Amino acid sequence: MIIMIRKGAEPEKVEALKQWLSRYDVTIDSAYIWGSEVLRMEGDLSKVDTSLIKRFDCVAMVTSTGEPYKFASRRNFPENTVIRVGNRVIGDNNFTVIAGPCSVESPEQIREVAQAVKTSGASILRGGAFKPRTSPYAFQGLKSRGIEMLLEAKKATGMPIVSEIVDISALPFFENVDIIQVGARNMQNFELLKELGQIRKPILLKRGPANTIQEFLLSAEYILAGGNKDVILCERGVRTFETLTRNTLDISAIPMLKKLTHLPVFADPSHACGIADIVPDIAFACAAAGADGVMIEVHNDPVNAFSDGAQSITPASFAAMMPKLSAICGILGKTLG
Amino acid sequence: MIIMIRKGAEPEKVEALKQWLSRYDVTIDSAYIWGSEVLRMEGDLSKVDTSLIKRFDCVAMVTSTGEPYKFASRRNFPENTVIRVGNRVIGDNNFTVIAGPCSVESPEQIREVAQAVKTSGASILRGGAFKPRTSPYAFQGLKSRGIEMLLEAKKATGMPIVSEIVDISALPFFENVDIIQVGARNMQNFELLKELGQIRKPILLKRGPANTIQEFLLSAEYILAGGNKDVILCERGVRTFETLTRNTLDISAIPMLKKLTHLPVFADPSHACGIADIVPDIAFACAAAGADGVMIEVHNDPVNAFSDGAQSITPASFAAMMPKLSAICGILGKTLG
Amino acid sequence: MIIMIRKGAEPEKVEALKQWLSRYDVTIDSAYIWGSEVLRMEGDLSKVDTSLIKRFDCVAMVTSTGEPYKFASRRNFPENTVIRVGNRVIGDNNFTVIAGPCSVESPEQIREVAQAVKTSGASILRGGAFKPRTSPYAFQGLKSRGIEMLLEAKKATGMPIVSEIVDISALPFFENVDIIQVGARNMQNFELLKELGQIRKPILLKRGPANTIQEFLLSAEYILAGGNKDVILCERGVRTFETLTRNTLDISAIPMLKKLTHLPVFADPSHACGIADIVPDIAFACAAAGADGVMIEVHNDPVNAFSDGAQSITPASFAAMMPKLSAICGILGKTLG
Amino acid sequence: MIIMIRKGAEPEKVEALKQWLSRYDVTIDSAYIWGSEVLRMEGDLSKVDTSLIKRFDCVAMVTSTGEPYKFASRRNFPENTVIRVGNRVIGDNNFTVIAGPCSVESPEQIREVAQAVKTSGASILRGGAFKPRTSPYAFQGLKSRGIEMLLEAKKATGMPIVSEIVDISALPFFENVDIIQVGARNMQNFELLKELGQIRKPILLKRGPANTIQEFLLSAEYILAGGNKDVILCERGVRTFETLTRNTLDISAIPMLKKLTHLPVFADPSHACGIADIVPDIAFACAAAGADGVMIEVHNDPVNAFSDGAQSITPASFAAMMPKLSAICGILGKTLG
Repeated sequence: MIIMIRKGAEPEKVEALKQWLSRYDVTIDSAYIWGSEVLRMEGDLSKVDTSLIKRFDCVAMVTSTGEPYKFASRRNFPENTVIRVGNRVIGDNNFTVIAGPCSVESPEQIREVAQAVKTSGASILRGGAFKPRTSPYAFQGLKSRGIEMLLEAKKATGMPIVSEIVDISALPFFENVDIIQVGARNMQNFELLKELGQIRKPILLKRGPANTIQEFLLSAEYILAGGNKDVILCERGVRTFETLTRNTLDISAIPMLKKLTHLPVFADPSHACGIADIVPDIAFACAAAGADGVMIEVHNDPVNAFSDGAQSITPASFAAMMPKLSAICGILGKTLG
Repeated sequence: MIIMIRKGAEPEKVEALKQWLSRYDVTIDSAYIWGSEVLRMEGDLSKVDTSLIKRFDCVAMVTSTGEPYKFASRRNFPENTVIRVGNRVIGDNNFTVIAGPCSVESPEQIREVAQAVKTSGASILRGGAFKPRTSPYAFQGLKSRGIEMLLEAKKATGMPIVSEIVDISALPFFENVDIIQVGARNMQNFELLKELGQIRKPILLKRGPANTIQEFLLSAEYILAGGNKDVILCERGVRTFETLTRNTLDISAIPMLKKLTHLPVFADPSHACGIADIVPDIAFACAAAGADGVMIEVHNDPVNAFSDGAQSITPASFAAMMPKLSAICGILGKTLG
Repeated sequence: MIIMIRKGAEPEKVEALKQWLSRYDVTIDSAYIWGSEVLRMEGDLSKVDTSLIKRFDCVAMVTSTGEPYKFASRRNFPENTVIRVGNRVIGDNNFTVIAGPCSVESPEQIREVAQAVKTSGASILRGGAFKPRTSPYAFQGLKSRGIEMLLEAKKATGMPIVSEIVDISALPFFENVDIIQVGARNMQNFELLKELGQIRKPILLKRGPANTIQEFLLSAEYILAGGNKDVILCERGVRTFETLTRNTLDISAIPMLKKLTHLPVFADPSHACGIADIVPDIAFACAAAGADGVMIEVHNDPVNAFSDGAQSITPASFAAMMPKLSAICGILGKTLG
Repeated sequence: MIIMIRKGAEPEKVEALKQWLSRYDVTIDSAYIWGSEVLRMEGDLSKVDTSLIKRFDCVAMVTSTGEPYKFASRRNFPENTVIRVGNRVIGDNNFTVIAGPCSVESPEQIREVAQAVKTSGASILRGGAFKPRTSPYAFQGLKSRGIEMLLEAKKATGMPIVSEIVDISALPFFENVDIIQVGARNMQNFELLKELGQIRKPILLKRGPANTIQEFLLSAEYILAGGNKDVILCERGVRTFETLTRNTLDISAIPMLKKLTHLPVFADPSHACGIADIVPDIAFACAAAGADGVMIEVHNDPVNAFSDGAQSITPASFAAMMPKLSAICGILGKTLG
């Protein structure tokens, strides 16, 4: 980090700055260029807050410290992270389709949807058991019973399963769940992220609707820094002024994330747009933009869905969508599975 | 709730709709007007999802169900909620100033700031012990030791204290904390909200940076529905494209909330704008817009603050701000304390 | 339009409402259902402001007037609009690639880029001559000389050309320009739109960065209502809190617009994301989402570009992108040209 | 401007950079510090695009060029701009209240409102004659006849008047209008701004709903750079995801603008929130935040207003609001007039 001192700054103010900087575990060198003093800090800069340095009167400018994350950075780890789930491989040249209902509602419902999406080519089954709902009066999920129904569907179909956790106390129920999802509203539930860094199971982390790409990577960093290296990022739309769609899927985030990080990048067209009719179009777009997978809500009876029916597509629509999706993946050199 | 059927809709489709509606615990009446069928639903409409009803082909339009919250609604509870904390009264004609550092850093620091803000007229002391931080590498707070230091400062000054909880497992540490704060990033941590609905202690709930006023009230409803009636709402800025300020304080939310709910409405100018220089101006604005209180970050040495130094004002600036703030409250018929 | 009167409303207030409604050129009928009066307005509802009706105390609810645009609506005009430009057909099963530099800089530059993009498969040439720039000190374009250079490139390559108009007084210079572009910042320059409704030349209308899809269609309606039926809509990103990309391309707007309107829908990945590296990925996504064309900035020497160099791709990148783009179009049943 | 070269950069790449930089009218010096080359550019840096410099591989970092505007900058012109309109002084210790209807509708209407707001203490009369409307089917204003009615009201009451221009061709009608308003949707109509820089009449420039504070100042710079020094800035709300209010008034923009520029800063609570009930609260907040004035929509019969009735307050509400507004100004050392 380089700090340029303002020309003509009072020496005692510069001294105060140097003393303040010495609180960090860094070495500080000083030199002069064109009559201005320049400071160089070296060492562990991850805790240095440049916004505070700028508040010193004597500072003309500060260089940034680069990326604030380490383990998530492709600069540090250029190789794509590849995650094995059952007999599936996520990342690299594989395009993974996760499908299933928003909420698990009954053993029959989840089994029926699971069979249907498997037949059409999905490789991982989703289903919500613990549901974070905006209203306290909305359906909150079948909880542990929902997980049991998912496990039965897993057994019946052989599909790995993914389900959302909303509180760390529920972790014991997820023992046989293959991928644990952290929802958008918990992307900055740091206590939860820290705990998930301690386990050895893939985490599908959704981007918060008001969070930047950098904050998204910092949340992934919480998990990675704990030692859990299997994080899947999932773009699911940011909040904007547009109200025709539920959120605005940030399609550019997909290639940007692929540049910045080695982690697999998924997208969730269903939650992003909230309108079943356009979900296939958005899924095609996500694949074309370079995503490593998509997560699609499929319900055998959307109108009777306990939650988010408006954005769920039918098994028939899902079946109709898959061949095109597979063809687009093929153009980009990926294999859908 | 009134549902108008599209003129010329096929009778079997209307029949399917009626059957579907019968899943709710409501009564359904039917009548005709200008040749169109009209349905009326009465009963507990809180679980009815109008977006699903609109998906039926035969539906021309649906009226909304009104406010989705009950206990938070001023329509249902017209009287201002008044909350007693120690010898302080929050709400009604009282304007409450909460002040203190972002993070508790040492016994001396918190005591010194507490004395200073008390002398200038603040009535409640704030201080963060459990800190939610975007980066895993940033200072995460002194945790239970921080709470102990706050309690010492409370004892020394007689000021009630408020501190943020980030996970329900920390609740035992808050036994002698007067007001528990739920931060913006946890506004939709519904498991936490449910737990806080079970206790009997005032909750200061901050608005999430991407949450609407309606979602804010629904989060309050989680706590109120649990039986805890003492919720203070706190506007702290929403996320926009403007980057000069940290967030954009939604000043209109203050009078809008006062119309919609009986709960006290506070604002946090420090987190909203993130720039110490303009914090007093924004505090004046919040008071003038009708807020019941403000929360101001004050640090005796902002440059050396462990967190959020850039937005903390000094005790001297705080002291200079208070007489004007008090005068503005006076114009609006409120007493600052 | 249906207006439900609140049960128990004072008759004189209902009378005042009816009198007020009579100012519109509509017929008003009254009926009763479940003891509540219901009013029905029929006729030209396009000027009726429902927000004012809601202000009457006696009104319980008002149905919306449906789509506020007529000529832009697919409901009214189900057939895709097809626009002929030279020997090119825009819309329907054609995918059109517009390419060229942000600004026309010299006869050599525009000719060289034109030849390059034509060879790679672009069918229309873009080039800015009148430039709207945020700063008064930035390059404002070569103006009429720029148009002349574009016309020379058109002659040399046979490609139709598109260029942006920023003020109606410049219209005479556009006589031989094939498509006139209205930039994002002029999407609500209604005086300009009205004038462009009077001419007979295709208009490429860009979405404003803070405008909803509905406002976008209403701006198109200004042109269509004037009699000019050849409007191409172009999504180019909305403004959000994310700063890594210049804007956030609203990918969902593409299929939503295709549902709502019969007009061709294009996208501009270059301006939307502002980062050359990811422009091809976003172009693929737009095609996959169902766009009828894309507009791509190509510059033979991006670093020396007079404007927007950071988002321009080289002719080599453009050439590399086109086969994949063509293949994706093929999957969706479209022919790139 | 300082450019740090990456350690170990290839010399020919650094040479290419230097050559490229030489296209600007600047001097370039080179020096070495800690083994890295550093370049210094001096001269007219206003045209230098730092984003292009960053694209050179050999560049490690570039300092910003500081504020991109000159005439609008308080750093360059520390004294408050004071504008005289008739016998009124705008800026400095004066708080100016502009009031009147959204649209001029008839001679009686504008005269009646003018008399009422004058009696209550407003000093400038507003009224729209040329109206920019989202829909082509909405009332577009009385145009030149509206201006005549405003001039009659000016004559009758002695109040200076302000009205919006939507196209430069209408300028002759504004000869006797005291202040010309540029609406939010024309904030980046640069051709219009350039023309208004050539006249000698105060311009009230509204902030665009998706424009940053910096872009706002750059639009003011277009007018100032043309030679017209009398620009009044007016914050009127930015577009966010919140839909309860029409826009979100950016209250922090008021003190931020006061820091960055010497120009008077106004706010328009009526357009920002769009709800008459809360307009007075927001006006109080704007005054408390340090605004130099507010613009309030007042209509004698809001429900029958031709435009924006939902946000207009009655003369009675306006009269009730003024004493409190005056008292708040007094606390901040300003005189309302």
